[in-house]
Amino acid sequence: MNRLYHVPLSPFCRKVRLVLAEKKIEVELVDEKYWEPSADFLRRNPAGKVPVLKMGGTHLTESHAIVEYLEELHPTPALLPGTPQDRFEARRLVMWFDDKFHNEVTKNLLYERVNKKIMGQGYPESRAIKTGAQKIKYHIDYMGWLLEQRRWLAGDAMTIADFTAAAHFSCLDYIRDIDWNRNAAVKDWYAKIKSRPAFRSILADQIPGFIQPPHYADLDF
Amino acid sequence: MNRLYHVPLSPFCRKVRLVLAEKKIEVELVDEKYWEPSADFLRRNPAGKVPVLKMGGTHLTESHAIVEYLEELHPTPALLPGTPQDRFEARRLVMWFDDKFHNEVTKNLLYERVNKKIMGQGYPESRAIKTGAQKIKYHIDYMGWLLEQRRWLAGDAMTIADFTAAAHFSCLDYIRDIDWNRNAAVKDWYAKIKSRPAFRSILADQIPGFIQPPHYADLDF
Repeated sequence: MNRLYHVPLSPFCRKVRLVLAEKKIEVELVDEKYWEPSADFLRRNPAGKVPVLKMGGTHLTESHAIVEYLEELHPTPALLPGTPQDRFEARRLVMWFDDKFHNEVTKNLLYERVNKKIMGQGYPESRAIKTGAQKIKYHIDYMGWLLEQRRWLAGDAMTIADFTAAAHFSCLDYIRDIDWNRNAAVKDWYAKIKSRPAFRSILADQIPGFIQPPHYADLDF
Repeated sequence: MNRLYHVPLSPFCRKVRLVLAEKKIEVELVDEKYWEPSADFLRRNPAGKVPVLKMGGTHLTESHAIVEYLEELHPTPALLPGTPQDRFEARRLVMWFDDKFHNEVTKNLLYERVNKKIMGQGYPESRAIKTGAQKIKYHIDYMGWLLEQRRWLAGDAMTIADFTAAAHFSCLDYIRDIDWNRNAAVKDWYAKIKSRPAFRSILADQIPGFIQPPHYADLDF
């Protein structure tokens, strides 16, 4: 049985969960407190991070490398487009969200509000929260601009770029940090991806100490 | 003519330069002070980062997405291995260096010593330097451990993982932050990659205010 060592509110873990579910690859989810790493966990992943996907006896790490691997082994349904130009655009946006959005928004909001509490590292810094809340506006506007020209973020087909962005957005939505009134195209995009069967397990997540807001799992939010 | 907007001591720019050179794709290098972004530059890259590769009329950003694109358009010589498992391992190590190594080492040493000075952001923090100098030891040991089992970092063929790691190492070597006595296998690996024609332009870099150390361009260091 495949096994994914993860934490529920990690965008990198959620991206891998979404891709596994979309490709109908069954996996057992194992909560992993990676910030209290056991010798066992560090053997599985010397980087000491989640996600770690155990598949066919090997432990796979680094979410983007895992996603490319799953795409190669299970090409249907395709989550990378057909031309090099379109694949470039999908990968560019994966990096955009996992690097730029992650550093400017996810770290400042999610890690301050949730990870610090769970890891016992004190209270959120209000300066970070303010920065994150400010920066996310620009990102939503940028996505809105992309979605004016395309059905999905990277083009006319749904790709790993959409799952990467939706993984970050779903974590932030759990802590009520997305202003869904800012851009109608972004809200429509999220409603579309949220209603996919692959999203169900993520909408069912309940994080102790953080109550799921009523709109979070509502497909008609 | 292809054009690469870059800064000389950026590991992400150097990775792209190495891949372009290895694939014999000609490119004009343009120094870009991305920390003083012009409206022109932001139009080319809304993320405000380097590298930006202008190719066939489009501006490509995000170093890893660029590398995958170059690999697809110019598959010879191959810088990704032949099997999904080996490609996974190459990509995993790209992420290892561009994420973990970058955060633990490159930021603490290179950005403190060089970027801060160039950008007029004051003096290096000694705590960061100390952390970087401590962390790099573990990374060199990890690479040494990989290289005991393999000719190159990701397996028996040279891949984008080697170029990614060498891009970080060459920047740190310029500022004398690599202890070449720590691990003989790592030194041998670097000597091998440094002697490739693709490396020449990088060894010729001269950064104003930072004198090139004598061993930096020496193939027999």
